Amino acid sequence: MEIGIKELAQGIDTVWVLLCAALVFFMEAGFAFLEAGFVRAKNSLNIVMKVFVDSTLGMLSFWAVGFGVMYGLDKAGIFGVSGFFLGGDLGHIDLRIPTYAFWLFQAAFAMAVASIISGAVAERMKFGAYMIFTIICTAIIYPVAGHWIWGSGGWLAEMGMLDFAGSAAVHAVGGMAALAAVLVLGPRNGKYNSDGTMNVIPAHNMHLAFLGTFILWVGWFGFNPGSALSGLDMNIARIAVTTNLAAATGGMTGILFTMWRYGKADPSMAANGALAGLAAITAGTAFVGPGSAVVIGMVAGVLVVLAVELFDRIKADDPVGAIAVHGVCGIWGTLAVGLFAAEGGLFFGGGIQLLSVQALGITAVSLWAFGTTFAVFTVLKKTIGIRVSAHEELEGMDLVEHGIPAYNELVTGSVLEKGIGGEHVLKDMSNPVVNAKPVKQ
Amino acid sequence: MEIGIKELAQGIDTVWVLLCAALVFFMEAGFAFLEAGFVRAKNSLNIVMKVFVDSTLGMLSFWAVGFGVMYGLDKAGIFGVSGFFLGGDLGHIDLRIPTYAFWLFQAAFAMAVASIISGAVAERMKFGAYMIFTIICTAIIYPVAGHWIWGSGGWLAEMGMLDFAGSAAVHAVGGMAALAAVLVLGPRNGKYNSDGTMNVIPAHNMHLAFLGTFILWVGWFGFNPGSALSGLDMNIARIAVTTNLAAATGGMTGILFTMWRYGKADPSMAANGALAGLAAITAGTAFVGPGSAVVIGMVAGVLVVLAVELFDRIKADDPVGAIAVHGVCGIWGTLAVGLFAAEGGLFFGGGIQLLSVQALGITAVSLWAFGTTFAVFTVLKKTIGIRVSAHEELEGMDLVEHGIPAYNELVTGSVLEKGIGGEHVLKDMSNPVVNAKPVKQ
Amino acid sequence: MEIGIKELAQGIDTVWVLLCAALVFFMEAGFAFLEAGFVRAKNSLNIVMKVFVDSTLGMLSFWAVGFGVMYGLDKAGIFGVSGFFLGGDLGHIDLRIPTYAFWLFQAAFAMAVASIISGAVAERMKFGAYMIFTIICTAIIYPVAGHWIWGSGGWLAEMGMLDFAGSAAVHAVGGMAALAAVLVLGPRNGKYNSDGTMNVIPAHNMHLAFLGTFILWVGWFGFNPGSALSGLDMNIARIAVTTNLAAATGGMTGILFTMWRYGKADPSMAANGALAGLAAITAGTAFVGPGSAVVIGMVAGVLVVLAVELFDRIKADDPVGAIAVHGVCGIWGTLAVGLFAAEGGLFFGGGIQLLSVQALGITAVSLWAFGTTFAVFTVLKKTIGIRVSAHEELEGMDLVEHGIPAYNELVTGSVLEKGIGGEHVLKDMSNPVVNAKPVKQ
Repeated sequence: MEIGIKELAQGIDTVWVLLCAALVFFMEAGFAFLEAGFVRAKNSLNIVMKVFVDSTLGMLSFWAVGFGVMYGLDKAGIFGVSGFFLGGDLGHIDLRIPTYAFWLFQAAFAMAVASIISGAVAERMKFGAYMIFTIICTAIIYPVAGHWIWGSGGWLAEMGMLDFAGSAAVHAVGGMAALAAVLVLGPRNGKYNSDGTMNVIPAHNMHLAFLGTFILWVGWFGFNPGSALSGLDMNIARIAVTTNLAAATGGMTGILFTMWRYGKADPSMAANGALAGLAAITAGTAFVGPGSAVVIGMVAGVLVVLAVELFDRIKADDPVGAIAVHGVCGIWGTLAVGLFAAEGGLFFGGGIQLLSVQALGITAVSLWAFGTTFAVFTVLKKTIGIRVSAHEELEGMDLVEHGIPAYNELVTGSVLEKGIGGEHVLKDMSNPVVNAKPVKQ
Repeated sequence: MEIGIKELAQGIDTVWVLLCAALVFFMEAGFAFLEAGFVRAKNSLNIVMKVFVDSTLGMLSFWAVGFGVMYGLDKAGIFGVSGFFLGGDLGHIDLRIPTYAFWLFQAAFAMAVASIISGAVAERMKFGAYMIFTIICTAIIYPVAGHWIWGSGGWLAEMGMLDFAGSAAVHAVGGMAALAAVLVLGPRNGKYNSDGTMNVIPAHNMHLAFLGTFILWVGWFGFNPGSALSGLDMNIARIAVTTNLAAATGGMTGILFTMWRYGKADPSMAANGALAGLAAITAGTAFVGPGSAVVIGMVAGVLVVLAVELFDRIKADDPVGAIAVHGVCGIWGTLAVGLFAAEGGLFFGGGIQLLSVQALGITAVSLWAFGTTFAVFTVLKKTIGIRVSAHEELEGMDLVEHGIPAYNELVTGSVLEKGIGGEHVLKDMSNPVVNAKPVKQ
Repeated sequence: MEIGIKELAQGIDTVWVLLCAALVFFMEAGFAFLEAGFVRAKNSLNIVMKVFVDSTLGMLSFWAVGFGVMYGLDKAGIFGVSGFFLGGDLGHIDLRIPTYAFWLFQAAFAMAVASIISGAVAERMKFGAYMIFTIICTAIIYPVAGHWIWGSGGWLAEMGMLDFAGSAAVHAVGGMAALAAVLVLGPRNGKYNSDGTMNVIPAHNMHLAFLGTFILWVGWFGFNPGSALSGLDMNIARIAVTTNLAAATGGMTGILFTMWRYGKADPSMAANGALAGLAAITAGTAFVGPGSAVVIGMVAGVLVVLAVELFDRIKADDPVGAIAVHGVCGIWGTLAVGLFAAEGGLFFGGGIQLLSVQALGITAVSLWAFGTTFAVFTVLKKTIGIRVSAHEELEGMDLVEHGIPAYNELVTGSVLEKGIGGEHVLKDMSNPVVNAKPVKQ
């Protein structure tokens, strides 16, 4: 092969996208351990298995159907109709990199959407029903919303909506689907008391949760800058910086806000604050400056704390805070583009045109994700069932669905004798009601 | 320095290979935690230390001797004789990248071979004997097989054998060496009963095992596409896609096949299924299409379940399933090139020429790896000894070999009161006989 | 955009630096889990939170102030005065990559310095005081030392000091700051007995510690080669090789030296040996050959064992060995450049000119880091206080500072009934005095 400028440019872009795809795929490990750490030990292997379903069945579903729906030849601005099984006409995707490289990067995004939802439905959803939902999510729900925003001919793309790496397409879609899912599924037994009070069901292993958080953050070095699809676009450096500054600010705000509000730096909110900053900056990362990124992350760090409290109050029981992190802060980030974009943002003299399009777009994809997930979960509930029995929930998903515990030799049982404020916690962790710690609202 | 096309091409390739080398080196962490999670707590630090020996002593042994044997000037097609200590004549290796970059990438492969074997001999092999074996494995056993297939002038290379990234050279060699090792070493005490029945000795920490699995999978983003040694070879995109599709299919098959066979999705088989798909696609990743990759992964996902059962039946006690994953599926993948290669594969009109060469090649390297390992283990057994005493095995390798446990404060002891089917498991995990759960075969 | 040689070169360099920055950022997870594993369970979440403070508040502090101090327009060779908040005049930094990419890579270095110190002060330092110190460390202490060595116009840079990726600027600065910190802070309660004997307070989770070690090692694939700031500098391949060989030799020496000295391969020293080799090679990685790297790593592997013993004897209580690894071996590595540099090193005919400069430079930055940290800690001690109360130390930092334990369900308490030599260890891990194991000195 004769090597010239064209081949070199293609090489740089392909190296970049493939390595970024590896980072984004690594996020599956991040989701798995973040979610496993936040739930109880008895359900923690099941949640890893569900994320593993996203990584395997989800990838295959996106290969067979999802990619074609998302990036295939456009039909009325609504969905794509070519490119199934990586075959057929894909010439309309204007790429310097091989289609295979583009596909792999996109496939890792599709898995991420499914893995946002897995956390919210943890500790009670049937494994088989989850598999079916993952297929539908990666084949239809995410790809249709993605087509609107990123597909050539997508109706929101045509309107000028800006969602660089997916605060809307990935995070808000995942978060709003998660909200619908938990509303149909109902809260975990023992989460809410008959007198209206709520129990905190504590994370069983914060090291796992932080391992997941760090991996997700590292993965975002691929998620956002990789979305430029080119190593020759020097904006990737700005993107990497705004991404990290928003993450840092979100995490810091999570720490400071809980120190101020509760008197102690809350580790869950530190982790979720950083992830909230990341979810929020993802839409605007390529369009805003470092200072705006800091503000966007700071707002996200506060929003996530308030949103977790809000969803608890409305009994949308989300064991890992996925709806708050990805849903609420994905929406915030999408709107923030309309405020902070250096070109077109309201705060930079751009008027409300861009903000209006962003608002319309985020409303559309949120409704789509919420509505379709609500429908799918309702149909699944009325047919094969989506929830394990109360007895199985008490026993734990790991033994019920997989026959083995996550920890075979490490003895489990609550040792948290003194929690915040010194309340006593009952000993038997196998009973979610009594192991939980009552809190005043 | 004046920069032109040549320097740019070299830069792209070097960046690519060095970053892929980092990913492949990361696989050492993957092996360490996969194996640590699958064994009992009392032996779990020792297995991490053995993998650490591969990463340190193994790297140095490959530097001093192995690399020269593998890629040095050819002697009769059998081994190389230059390049020891990264010195001497290496001009015959036709590389655009610096020799140093090539060496580092290859060194990470050599460690991986040793780390395949470490898992199979876990929970009973002496640390000192393991160190000696690692030196021999990375200096001689792997490099000779590697020279045959990848060395310039290697006899299998000359015959046209295709093994892109090492289903044969790395995985089958590691797996067949592991088989020889466990046959000489014998099964763990308590694994098999006098009446011919077998005990399941459960994984002590499935989160560690899945952490290892995810890291290995991410490492394969470097292992296979990096083997192109060039970021300008656009086939790297196809390689990345076939690698991932085979992994996904293998993992999915592990889940579905165990759901069908045992009624529950088995987490160990999900993890090992994905790794089996990866080991299998590694030979053909550059030569087959996505559809073929899916089939190769699917077969691997079934094979690994059957092979684990088979090796248990013949009392080849492999605590982590390394022989099944790397040995059996490495062989399968090597043969699969003869079936599925777009050019020369039997199913694509290529006749049996390529398949014959693949069969000859995989037989040769399997016999070599099995035979030399069998010999080395036998000599070590008759001289310094390869196995800790029964008393030490009961006490656990961590305290015996290293003086500290993996978990100093977390209380260990079986809490699995109800396993699959509800059998009771006795409490004392320090006794491998009584802690194990009898299963009918 | 028209793409030519210039754009391609910039693209390669930017891709390289951004991906290396991701690897260096990943080291934060490495520090977090290395340190968490080495300390007691009851303080292990707090140490992760402190590293998280480095990653968030530390990054923001470096953005606001530190980067300008380090790389801004030079003032008398001592510090920089432009570039705060990534604004102002930075044209004097001669870069082919965007300033944003350079900043992100440097920001990850600043966090690392803070995270070296966090380990040494573990298990007793107040969270709030740690936050303030991190701000000062990443805004002033590290950047000033860094300016001297790496800033354009820095006085040590002008003298010809060679510190390629920071054995002095990062590791010795971090290690010497850590030494000052622990001297002001005092040892953990229960570490030293009134009769002058010392207690070993064992690591609570060696898998976490090795996870951290592997992640740090992988991160060094970015730390050292990335410091070339160019993917077109073919020296990056040599750098990657010398880095890995020193790590391997350090780890191997840690294993062999403890086998010879204590009769058992010590896992902590295996891990710290590899890290010591890495800290030591970091200054000379670009200037020495593979053979020299092996020697540098070997010396580091012995030094770290002796230094850990020494610091224990002088009651500089460092729970993770950070002073020995980063301080002592950072100093060793800086001096080693004067001995082993292919051009200018004493052993390669270069005389003592370079060695003298290295000695002067390492003395200067060590005194700076030690002195400023000593001063800051003393002021903090006399004002807001730096140490939790004895009662809080007994209870554990996790419950006191964050209200939750790292492990909510896994039962903690010592099970190490038989340690090295068979001594009994008392059961109550909540009391550091009685849970510790007396050793003779």
